[in-house]
Amino acid sequence: MFAVTILGNNSAVPAFNRHPTSQVVTLDGNNYLVDCGEGTQIQMINYKIRRSKISHIFISHLHGDHYFGLIGLLNSFSLLSHQQELHIFGPTALKEIIDLQLKVADTELCYPLHIHPITEAATLLDNENLTVKCFRTNHRIECYGFVFAQKKHPRKLDPDKAKEYEIPVSFYQRLTNGEDYTRKDGSIIKNEWVTEASPPGKTYAFCADTKYDESLIPHIKDADMIYHETTYLDNLRERAEARFHSTTRQAAVLAKKAGVKKLLIGHFSSKYDTLEEFEAEAREIFENTELALEGVAYTI
Amino acid sequence: MFAVTILGNNSAVPAFNRHPTSQVVTLDGNNYLVDCGEGTQIQMINYKIRRSKISHIFISHLHGDHYFGLIGLLNSFSLLSHQQELHIFGPTALKEIIDLQLKVADTELCYPLHIHPITEAATLLDNENLTVKCFRTNHRIECYGFVFAQKKHPRKLDPDKAKEYEIPVSFYQRLTNGEDYTRKDGSIIKNEWVTEASPPGKTYAFCADTKYDESLIPHIKDADMIYHETTYLDNLRERAEARFHSTTRQAAVLAKKAGVKKLLIGHFSSKYDTLEEFEAEAREIFENTELALEGVAYTI
Repeated sequence: MFAVTILGNNSAVPAFNRHPTSQVVTLDGNNYLVDCGEGTQIQMINYKIRRSKISHIFISHLHGDHYFGLIGLLNSFSLLSHQQELHIFGPTALKEIIDLQLKVADTELCYPLHIHPITEAATLLDNENLTVKCFRTNHRIECYGFVFAQKKHPRKLDPDKAKEYEIPVSFYQRLTNGEDYTRKDGSIIKNEWVTEASPPGKTYAFCADTKYDESLIPHIKDADMIYHETTYLDNLRERAEARFHSTTRQAAVLAKKAGVKKLLIGHFSSKYDTLEEFEAEAREIFENTELALEGVAYTI
Repeated sequence: MFAVTILGNNSAVPAFNRHPTSQVVTLDGNNYLVDCGEGTQIQMINYKIRRSKISHIFISHLHGDHYFGLIGLLNSFSLLSHQQELHIFGPTALKEIIDLQLKVADTELCYPLHIHPITEAATLLDNENLTVKCFRTNHRIECYGFVFAQKKHPRKLDPDKAKEYEIPVSFYQRLTNGEDYTRKDGSIIKNEWVTEASPPGKTYAFCADTKYDESLIPHIKDADMIYHETTYLDNLRERAEARFHSTTRQAAVLAKKAGVKKLLIGHFSSKYDTLEEFEAEAREIFENTELALEGVAYTI
């Protein structure tokens, strides 16, 4: 399963039982944490996110509502005797902050922690299941979005057919990689006669905090799902602009122009107690929009 | 009213819907915050603590479960357009951490913030309502407890009696301060003939994180109420000792030796799902013990 679970969908000040930004991307049994606002570890308990399955954390920027919960989570990992390596990707100063907080507490974590500075658009992670790339967004301070691209699975072999064509078992892996088989007599067994294509890898893009900016489009183009902030309804477009945030319609326009399949919206301002209008405004422009609701896992 | 409201009663890792340490001391309409673990601002919302009434925050030490919620609270104050001065008292490095986090976020708070380093036992605050003093506790890193001493109110004047003795109104304030009045003929009107004593000021001591240490006694002696940590039940006395924490019986013995009137216990380890045994063990030694329960205001 490739999905994203929302742990926090609110902007800076917690309100109406909504929490600051955090999401968990789940793929093939691994959890990838994206941003970690205050209270994220409690939200993980509330929504039964297995902390032990987290090996990578991505922090978009150093406004507090996106990372103040990180140091508490790192501490708790240690107190809970987490053993595996933990990798954190985030803006350069993040390491200084964490190092300082660990130092003054005289805390030595019981697991290996690697903090990787992000300084520009780059590939951050490339494992057997997915790649994670980052891109700059247009915010008041240095801020990055993240693209999670699931890798395409190997082709699915039909062993009966492979046997029928007398292909040796030692060649099976090359078949799943898409190769044709050439028999000793020179005749060719076309790959598609014995395998079928797996579904293509899917893509999820987290656009972090940003004002409306079409320069994001190349990074999120044709994604299966994107998350784009909608701090304000569209009548507060000027305020959004001034604060480097976006409105409902702006997020929807960007989703449409980028040709994505689905739009999740969040980072709602604390001035709004209800959210229906966010969905309605965005759907006028981009029909397949959903509110990012806390505790809900959205399949990508 | 002089009371303390518990916002968090758990030790390091949040569990069983218990939160890291934070308390609000309320006196004469002012709120004094003591420690500020992660999620404190959300607990304040849950329990309707008026953030605008907080002008002083006291941080005992720099283990995360006592201060990771502070920076988020400071940010929220600013986003909510808090205006009044805010004073924070805590170990020296606290200022460095806050300054760094504000700097990387390019945040300028909209209210005057004063961070006062604590380096030794001292009087931190002395206003018309109370004094706050700090004292060293015995923990793994530099840690302070706080004593909140309510000031004695002026004596209560009986205006009928003062009139009867022909004391001029201009002397009334000196009467409430306890002075006798000397008439022109040299005869003396005893203060207690026209005033009565107000109840004495009460005292609350927060003993922070500490192992059992009788050197705390002079600071908390005869207090009306103390809060003392009981991270563990008494069968884990060795573990408590090794981690610079206390058990139920140790807290109760200290309360008894210090001659305090009431003992609140908290900072429960996450290994315990229920708390009845904490109360039972402490009460065997010190009957007037109560569990510090989140959301409950304990009158001092």
